Amino acid sequence: MPGNSFGHTFRLTTWGESHGPAVGCTVDGCPAGLELCVSDIQRELDRRRVGQSKVSSARQEPDQVQILSGIFEGRTTGTPISMLVMNSDAKSSHYESIKDLYRPGHADFTWDAKYGFRDWRGGGRSSARETIGRVAGGAIAKLLLTTAGVRIFAYTLALADPQAGPDQMLRAQVFDFEEIERNIMRCPDIKVAAQMVERVDAARRALDSLGGIVEVRAQGVPPGLGEPVFDKLQADIGKAMFSIPAIKGVEFGEGMDVATMTGAEHNDPFMRRDDGSIGVASNHHGGILGGISTGEEIVVRLAAKPPASIARPQQTVDRAGDPATIEVHGRHDPTVLPRLVPIAEAMLAMVLADHLLRQRMARLR
Amino acid sequence: MPGNSFGHTFRLTTWGESHGPAVGCTVDGCPAGLELCVSDIQRELDRRRVGQSKVSSARQEPDQVQILSGIFEGRTTGTPISMLVMNSDAKSSHYESIKDLYRPGHADFTWDAKYGFRDWRGGGRSSARETIGRVAGGAIAKLLLTTAGVRIFAYTLALADPQAGPDQMLRAQVFDFEEIERNIMRCPDIKVAAQMVERVDAARRALDSLGGIVEVRAQGVPPGLGEPVFDKLQADIGKAMFSIPAIKGVEFGEGMDVATMTGAEHNDPFMRRDDGSIGVASNHHGGILGGISTGEEIVVRLAAKPPASIARPQQTVDRAGDPATIEVHGRHDPTVLPRLVPIAEAMLAMVLADHLLRQRMARLR
Amino acid sequence: MPGNSFGHTFRLTTWGESHGPAVGCTVDGCPAGLELCVSDIQRELDRRRVGQSKVSSARQEPDQVQILSGIFEGRTTGTPISMLVMNSDAKSSHYESIKDLYRPGHADFTWDAKYGFRDWRGGGRSSARETIGRVAGGAIAKLLLTTAGVRIFAYTLALADPQAGPDQMLRAQVFDFEEIERNIMRCPDIKVAAQMVERVDAARRALDSLGGIVEVRAQGVPPGLGEPVFDKLQADIGKAMFSIPAIKGVEFGEGMDVATMTGAEHNDPFMRRDDGSIGVASNHHGGILGGISTGEEIVVRLAAKPPASIARPQQTVDRAGDPATIEVHGRHDPTVLPRLVPIAEAMLAMVLADHLLRQRMARLR
Amino acid sequence: MPGNSFGHTFRLTTWGESHGPAVGCTVDGCPAGLELCVSDIQRELDRRRVGQSKVSSARQEPDQVQILSGIFEGRTTGTPISMLVMNSDAKSSHYESIKDLYRPGHADFTWDAKYGFRDWRGGGRSSARETIGRVAGGAIAKLLLTTAGVRIFAYTLALADPQAGPDQMLRAQVFDFEEIERNIMRCPDIKVAAQMVERVDAARRALDSLGGIVEVRAQGVPPGLGEPVFDKLQADIGKAMFSIPAIKGVEFGEGMDVATMTGAEHNDPFMRRDDGSIGVASNHHGGILGGISTGEEIVVRLAAKPPASIARPQQTVDRAGDPATIEVHGRHDPTVLPRLVPIAEAMLAMVLADHLLRQRMARLR
Repeated sequence: MPGNSFGHTFRLTTWGESHGPAVGCTVDGCPAGLELCVSDIQRELDRRRVGQSKVSSARQEPDQVQILSGIFEGRTTGTPISMLVMNSDAKSSHYESIKDLYRPGHADFTWDAKYGFRDWRGGGRSSARETIGRVAGGAIAKLLLTTAGVRIFAYTLALADPQAGPDQMLRAQVFDFEEIERNIMRCPDIKVAAQMVERVDAARRALDSLGGIVEVRAQGVPPGLGEPVFDKLQADIGKAMFSIPAIKGVEFGEGMDVATMTGAEHNDPFMRRDDGSIGVASNHHGGILGGISTGEEIVVRLAAKPPASIARPQQTVDRAGDPATIEVHGRHDPTVLPRLVPIAEAMLAMVLADHLLRQRMARLR
Repeated sequence: MPGNSFGHTFRLTTWGESHGPAVGCTVDGCPAGLELCVSDIQRELDRRRVGQSKVSSARQEPDQVQILSGIFEGRTTGTPISMLVMNSDAKSSHYESIKDLYRPGHADFTWDAKYGFRDWRGGGRSSARETIGRVAGGAIAKLLLTTAGVRIFAYTLALADPQAGPDQMLRAQVFDFEEIERNIMRCPDIKVAAQMVERVDAARRALDSLGGIVEVRAQGVPPGLGEPVFDKLQADIGKAMFSIPAIKGVEFGEGMDVATMTGAEHNDPFMRRDDGSIGVASNHHGGILGGISTGEEIVVRLAAKPPASIARPQQTVDRAGDPATIEVHGRHDPTVLPRLVPIAEAMLAMVLADHLLRQRMARLR
Repeated sequence: MPGNSFGHTFRLTTWGESHGPAVGCTVDGCPAGLELCVSDIQRELDRRRVGQSKVSSARQEPDQVQILSGIFEGRTTGTPISMLVMNSDAKSSHYESIKDLYRPGHADFTWDAKYGFRDWRGGGRSSARETIGRVAGGAIAKLLLTTAGVRIFAYTLALADPQAGPDQMLRAQVFDFEEIERNIMRCPDIKVAAQMVERVDAARRALDSLGGIVEVRAQGVPPGLGEPVFDKLQADIGKAMFSIPAIKGVEFGEGMDVATMTGAEHNDPFMRRDDGSIGVASNHHGGILGGISTGEEIVVRLAAKPPASIARPQQTVDRAGDPATIEVHGRHDPTVLPRLVPIAEAMLAMVLADHLLRQRMARLR
Repeated sequence: MPGNSFGHTFRLTTWGESHGPAVGCTVDGCPAGLELCVSDIQRELDRRRVGQSKVSSARQEPDQVQILSGIFEGRTTGTPISMLVMNSDAKSSHYESIKDLYRPGHADFTWDAKYGFRDWRGGGRSSARETIGRVAGGAIAKLLLTTAGVRIFAYTLALADPQAGPDQMLRAQVFDFEEIERNIMRCPDIKVAAQMVERVDAARRALDSLGGIVEVRAQGVPPGLGEPVFDKLQADIGKAMFSIPAIKGVEFGEGMDVATMTGAEHNDPFMRRDDGSIGVASNHHGGILGGISTGEEIVVRLAAKPPASIARPQQTVDRAGDPATIEVHGRHDPTVLPRLVPIAEAMLAMVLADHLLRQRMARLR
């Protein structure tokens, strides 16, 4: 089974290279009858687009989406929804001079190892432009989830802070979710957001880049989603998040810190909610127990490595293995975090849409 | 697509409940011609078995595996390999009294939410006995990988240390991989192992349980494994690990700590190895770049929450939502870490076996 | 993706060789809450069993099924249902002498070509004993369909008639469906059934075997089942039927004869039924239009080649390619038709169960 | 799993409606390194195109394909190949007047039954324009097969002959394969081709349409392709062929006629070929034994029903179930056979490409 599709019932296939004619995707499995128009997709793509602010790449692309199939009179028909975005600002000349060098931290070497050669223009298919298809698919998933009362949002939780010393992060302290889309870092803490922007500026001046953490949440998820035993909800979300470029760690609820906890601390007591339904008194578990949603908020965090493209000279080798010094020019983000926010939302939305549909088959009628 | 299968080309399906007649699995897609006998499977199952030491549950099961198909004259035939283990020491009476209560931290509530009812005997299918099928499948994957020069091993890296204060861990300092299978904690640091055993004893006396971290490594993985873009190697490994019960965090290489690093620190320079091949001078990336193996050691860490079954009274509700106090008796592990080691190895082995086979299709011949 | 699984949402995996310890299967994706007991499975297996009459093989096997998982208190739990049947009457000695010869019409040569070697005992995995898993899985699918008002049945429609000359068949003229299970040919026409038994006896005496046709019907199928465009209902049924050993032709409705018809003859006019629903005035289309069920009876016919095992000497070669004469002893059916009936029913039942579940995802709620 | 994808390793996804902006497809899983240019695709699409001759629809579409991804410097890169064809001659007005009527023999009623509504313009997704994506995907599969020495071709074998009386066909008697692409019927028998054209003309004048048979062959298929037990080669080919609109019967080798044969007649003796390899002395089996290719020519026949769109008035109902008379205008083919030829070739090519790749995993290395 080739690797460019995701999901079982709500299924996305993406295609396209950074400097090819276009990038796009097909969503298969969206139920018939969902109200959908181009602006629903465009709104999310605009959030992902580069050139939105000084913290992201200067590449200018309108990223205007076209819907080519699957919609009739404003509603999905149950057939595949094909979408594409033309590539308009591809400057391959930046890449021509380094096409035989392996950029550190990039996929140049591994793609050659896999396929024997690669489309080196703009990173080819390993470019972040591939995520356009994900965000487009995720926009449809979000609409579907909205009809079920599910809301998804993400934000920049933390950013590396080299000025504060090794292993330090700038981390949101105050969580004002209305603030997220108002600042260019998409951080819920307005003060920390300002500090983050300063650090990103400093990193760019230092010809360096910064890692960080995005947190994604889903509210209103009905209990019961997730398929034992391999397609547990956290397994499918974990896969979704680790399929995003640059992600090196994923955690739910207390995350890696569960390693420091005892059972008495971590167990969340069940209780009766005011509306009579069963809930939990705390949410250490992050919304999933035994691989199945509990109805509590799902909380996921992703650690993104610092972007590999930095403007300073780096040691590497060429295809023949001969040592070389490489300077990566082009238009690169010193941080991917704000743009990672809509991508992470999209991936979570698609997993939940998939499991929302799969849950329809769990019981006899 | 139901959720009890894993992998695309090397494909495992597990079945069975804790207190049903048996648990087992089918491996489909193992190439013909692999030398395989029962003891290859049994050896790994013995490592997973409970009752091996004082740090694990007192349930006594020989867990003797039978191979029912797919082998002829000592070699795999290319047909499905069916294996089963009878359940011999199931004591359902422990569970009868609490069958209408939702154990905190367990999947009782979520399974009821999903299916409307559940097999409450011993946790039913959400029991850790399900992992027998994984370890059996992983044993075959390991044999297949051995023919390609790949070696996989795991160990207990860290354990919660409640006596040292909140958020503290006992963590291996010295890595003697020969030591792993010699101590009951499967920790590569003999001194830390002894401390861990003490803490586990203390936790049991305190009617509590402990979280921790297992680290898994794969050596000798050829460069080129992993399928862009959704079936990236870390995506499939991430899914595999998050499908294991109790896992709340998964990370590769520097893991969550990449959030505190800069690009200049994290990028691993490419270099020519002594044998002329291309490698990297450091392994911050943990063996995978762009979703594809680099040939360096793959390094994964899993954070396991403290086991939810603790012997002290806990607040909860019953199926009707009425408040209740629950005391979970039975035979439970105060830590799952040593038994998690072979399970994590099995899951990594199956992902790599799957991608080793998938890589056969990457290029024209 | 290995080839031993069938179906997307109601998914069967079979395993086992003719002379291995057992054959069996796992059904994954059966919804929770279906009432199911061993006798529901056994009843169907008894219909498939050899040794039922003088028209089938003399091999004596009780084929007693065990259910190992997925049932609790008489109902399916939503988890995999594992079933097995021990192989009790395997006589490999019949096969030892011909293990290096390629039996004409059998899969010996092709399995060697594929895998390099094969389990030659009793045909190994290419034996008809593999269909035990299909019939067991189909029995569950039938129960699920029954809850939706769908009824499936099949019968022997025609048998080769060598005494009447080339290209002649004995074909049922009268269709009394109550008659099917009363005669050993499972033919709905009692007179033709008697003639068929005579021909089978004659074929056995002539050390020969006979081909024929089975017809399968599904009544009460709701309109709307089938997934455009590749998983059309006839595509999935076609695959199901062609996966049964010995099938060389499959047709729906008028079948191959549509090649002789005009549009005016073949088109079925739509009309209003007495109950107000929309139906068709005739059923040339065989219950499926555009790949989707119409609500009319689904009618499928399968042509089974004459069994390849005949007791007369035949020309062939051995593994080295050297010419040889082979005499296939053992206990073989001169016709497979009566035993094909429950197998064909099982395959149709599984396709319809699969699409019944898939249809749950077609529309927004 | 939604139904718009086909194949496991060489995987096609099609999208698009008859009167939407475009139709297209994505091929995922084509190995890297295959030489491929637009004209390789266009050549096959030109064979499928309408308006080629007087026996097909008058709709005029250039059907010019664009390749949007997956090719670099004239070779496939291993990434998805996205292709599209704009819809340029869509005249929806023909359909507006009948949008609430169910055309006999068409999918209007069943799509409404499935999805609740449908894109009625030009048949929407149930239009034959969807097969453009199949032919584009098949063109790539053919190139891949060519590198393995496999050649595929098809032709019109038979056509209904209403003037000769019921149940009669015009059937090729002489097989000159060079003749196929020279006549507009794509019939290998030049004399019969001329008679077929006469009958098609007569059918058009009679406001009627004709059924027929296409035969497809694959030469040079290596022995060993096909996956026991459900993904047998004939099962996957059967599914492929039954997924083509209008197909009501599929058969291999002797096909439905095996029902009239005895084992002694049908069994093909194995023999040593002149080159030392093992072959068969006859090919009753049609190139597949036990679901696996033998190396002999694969021979498949498809029966296509007469096109449902006929210009004469027909009885039907509207969406409310009220009786109505319908006259289907528009531009319709009185026979689909010549255009079915490249479609059938494409489907067979994709199945064989898929199994050629899957066979790479059958054995240990």
